[in-house]
Amino acid sequence: MVDLETIVRLAAHRGFIFPGSDIYGGLANSWDYGPLGVELKNNIKQAWWRKFVRNRADVVGIDAALMMNSKVWEASGHLETFNDPLVECKNCHARSRADQVDLQQACSICGEGPDFTEAADFNLMFKTFMGPKQEAAATVYLRPETAQAMFVDFLRVQQSMRMRVPFGIAQIGRAFRNEITPGNFIFRTREFEQMEIEYFVAEKDWEKYFDEWLKLMHDWIKYCGIDEKLVHEKEIADDDLAHYSKRTVDIEFDFPFGRSELYGIAYRTDFDLRKHAEASGKDLQVEDPVSGEKFYPHVVEPTFGTDRTVLAILLSAYHVEDVKGEKRVVMKFKPELAPYQVAVLPLSRKEELAKVAKPVVDDLRKDFSVDYDETQSIGKRYRRQDEIGTPFCVTVDFDSLEDKQVTVRERDSMKQERIEIDKVIEYLKEKIYE
Amino acid sequence: MVDLETIVRLAAHRGFIFPGSDIYGGLANSWDYGPLGVELKNNIKQAWWRKFVRNRADVVGIDAALMMNSKVWEASGHLETFNDPLVECKNCHARSRADQVDLQQACSICGEGPDFTEAADFNLMFKTFMGPKQEAAATVYLRPETAQAMFVDFLRVQQSMRMRVPFGIAQIGRAFRNEITPGNFIFRTREFEQMEIEYFVAEKDWEKYFDEWLKLMHDWIKYCGIDEKLVHEKEIADDDLAHYSKRTVDIEFDFPFGRSELYGIAYRTDFDLRKHAEASGKDLQVEDPVSGEKFYPHVVEPTFGTDRTVLAILLSAYHVEDVKGEKRVVMKFKPELAPYQVAVLPLSRKEELAKVAKPVVDDLRKDFSVDYDETQSIGKRYRRQDEIGTPFCVTVDFDSLEDKQVTVRERDSMKQERIEIDKVIEYLKEKIYE
Repeated sequence: MVDLETIVRLAAHRGFIFPGSDIYGGLANSWDYGPLGVELKNNIKQAWWRKFVRNRADVVGIDAALMMNSKVWEASGHLETFNDPLVECKNCHARSRADQVDLQQACSICGEGPDFTEAADFNLMFKTFMGPKQEAAATVYLRPETAQAMFVDFLRVQQSMRMRVPFGIAQIGRAFRNEITPGNFIFRTREFEQMEIEYFVAEKDWEKYFDEWLKLMHDWIKYCGIDEKLVHEKEIADDDLAHYSKRTVDIEFDFPFGRSELYGIAYRTDFDLRKHAEASGKDLQVEDPVSGEKFYPHVVEPTFGTDRTVLAILLSAYHVEDVKGEKRVVMKFKPELAPYQVAVLPLSRKEELAKVAKPVVDDLRKDFSVDYDETQSIGKRYRRQDEIGTPFCVTVDFDSLEDKQVTVRERDSMKQERIEIDKVIEYLKEKIYE
Repeated sequence: MVDLETIVRLAAHRGFIFPGSDIYGGLANSWDYGPLGVELKNNIKQAWWRKFVRNRADVVGIDAALMMNSKVWEASGHLETFNDPLVECKNCHARSRADQVDLQQACSICGEGPDFTEAADFNLMFKTFMGPKQEAAATVYLRPETAQAMFVDFLRVQQSMRMRVPFGIAQIGRAFRNEITPGNFIFRTREFEQMEIEYFVAEKDWEKYFDEWLKLMHDWIKYCGIDEKLVHEKEIADDDLAHYSKRTVDIEFDFPFGRSELYGIAYRTDFDLRKHAEASGKDLQVEDPVSGEKFYPHVVEPTFGTDRTVLAILLSAYHVEDVKGEKRVVMKFKPELAPYQVAVLPLSRKEELAKVAKPVVDDLRKDFSVDYDETQSIGKRYRRQDEIGTPFCVTVDFDSLEDKQVTVRERDSMKQERIEIDKVIEYLKEKIYE
């Protein structure tokens, strides 16, 4: 597999992902999505939403405020338990995760000691103050997960949309964790994006829906073009389960830095709804339409990290080939997800070619994301399009002026075909949205 | 015009927008987008992106981290000048905006006094701490605007995408301002979303592009179905201009609470790039391709508030009609932007109708956002679809089983037409994407 540095370099060079606050020396492993990265990420998010929300009658979406009332985090247990134990070097005052420090050795940062404090809990939520006073009453936290909003809004959603169990609430959005050791490019950052569903079921049905969603997650992985050979399921042992979960399966991926969590699915029981009902005094139960009995729905929660999806796709797409003794780097993105689906390349900058090429671009833009590039030699332009993963190049040459045909080049096979201009859209639609 | 309370009530009742953290008594005018609100908002964002980014060769997008290095806000002037002057009541310690308090009168909150402190500057940025230490060095701010990321990433974007002036960098994303008095539903919230473009031009061309973008903003307003009679331009007087701007035009809208800013366009000169170049020591100039001279591009900045767009659309879409003595509430959304473009309604819950209706739903979902509703009487279902703004209802009745036709009802005219099932998609495509 390609190493991480190669991907980081390609991502920066080609406009996928840059270091955040770069001109100021960055900011602790924060990253900005550049022009091609944001297209790739948006395509992923929109495909996910289409598949799991718009095309399903039983799932609806929300987009909640990132800042919620602190009582949410009290009830969910995050205020009390969302901690890492830290030790502090008494000499340099650097803090480190207790499980990552050898307390018998000198401090790895200042070289003095060993002279560490006892481990103390450090809450991973970002704290800020709302309103003009900086005091406890005004403290709010940036959400450490998107999930709680689906529980807090559960009743509003269920009633306004007249949903009946089984049904799901989905959300895509930012979450924030003040990780002690972020790292590995966009794998672990303090600010990240989740795509998440809380699927509400009758208790007796949870295993059936757990299996169903686990399968759907694998379908999604396949759809994305993530290399399935590198994907593994890991059943979390009972002792390691989070306090709210009775079963959790991690979907892991063989990243260059080791096998690590890509996605996860958890059976959260009715823990969250019960906790919020108790804490808020609201009745968060639903009624069985047949028996009329009230009950708390149980929850199956499939979670997809957006940034980890992007990373797994970048890693899976990267290929190096030898073409007549030359190295060809090609990102084999799924055509639907590629930043550009089509590039239109007039053979030269001559006005007469632009006259033919530009209306083709306008036409193609109705159905595809299109790049237009008239700089450099055609060979160099093909190589750039390969490296940014554009599945089809449409070349307009001087013959096109006569025969009203263009050359369509396919990225992976590099095969070229002459196609009538009038038929290019149909041709590409079939290839891209097969 | 409809009053704000009616819109707030409809939005909550029909699943557009709920009070944030509602079961815990809310959180200072924060709001969550519900199932229909998130569809409406996503449709707006995607249309904006398509129009201003994907369909233009001269604009590319980014999606930057919300947390940036504090030096960004030092250089931009936000740390020093992004303040509201506040006074504090010495009795109850409540703080208020100095310009909103009558200092000759008793405190409006505790009734004592008047006994206020001198006005002191209060910075509107949300502060938090990154990493395990809570000290000045670890202070970061939630971005109060999306704009600065485009300046900080300017060189990376320009080089990786080989852009030449004039060109633009666009971003859609959250921003945060610790407003002293948020209010008026989603008009002024502490957490909000912007759609923004920084358009880089040669200094001599700024007026031309300012006018061009101002016109494009009006085109967009028209496209959205925002009532143009309620839209007004306001030229900001020289004395009131922000420190970085040489010309600003606000696009205002007649909200129920008064005429207020909907969008804005500012000529920011080369203020930001120069400031960041000075502060970072990086060369943020570009080269004139003809003369080879280096220069700082000047910036024209059209800014669109996403939430204000949603609000203006909700207000413009709301209509009450008298239909045979009954009140009909109808949200006349632009068909492209409506949460659902089509609702499929089998006349009854009979299995045989579902058998015809469900394949129609599956088919329609390839091109549209589709609701399926088989509860209640057909009259009630039409009224619900009117109230959530669905432009077309497709009714499957018992005749459909024989003649393979369905009834298509248009929302605004309430006209009904029989259409062959095979031709429904073509029919609706023409109507919706005219």
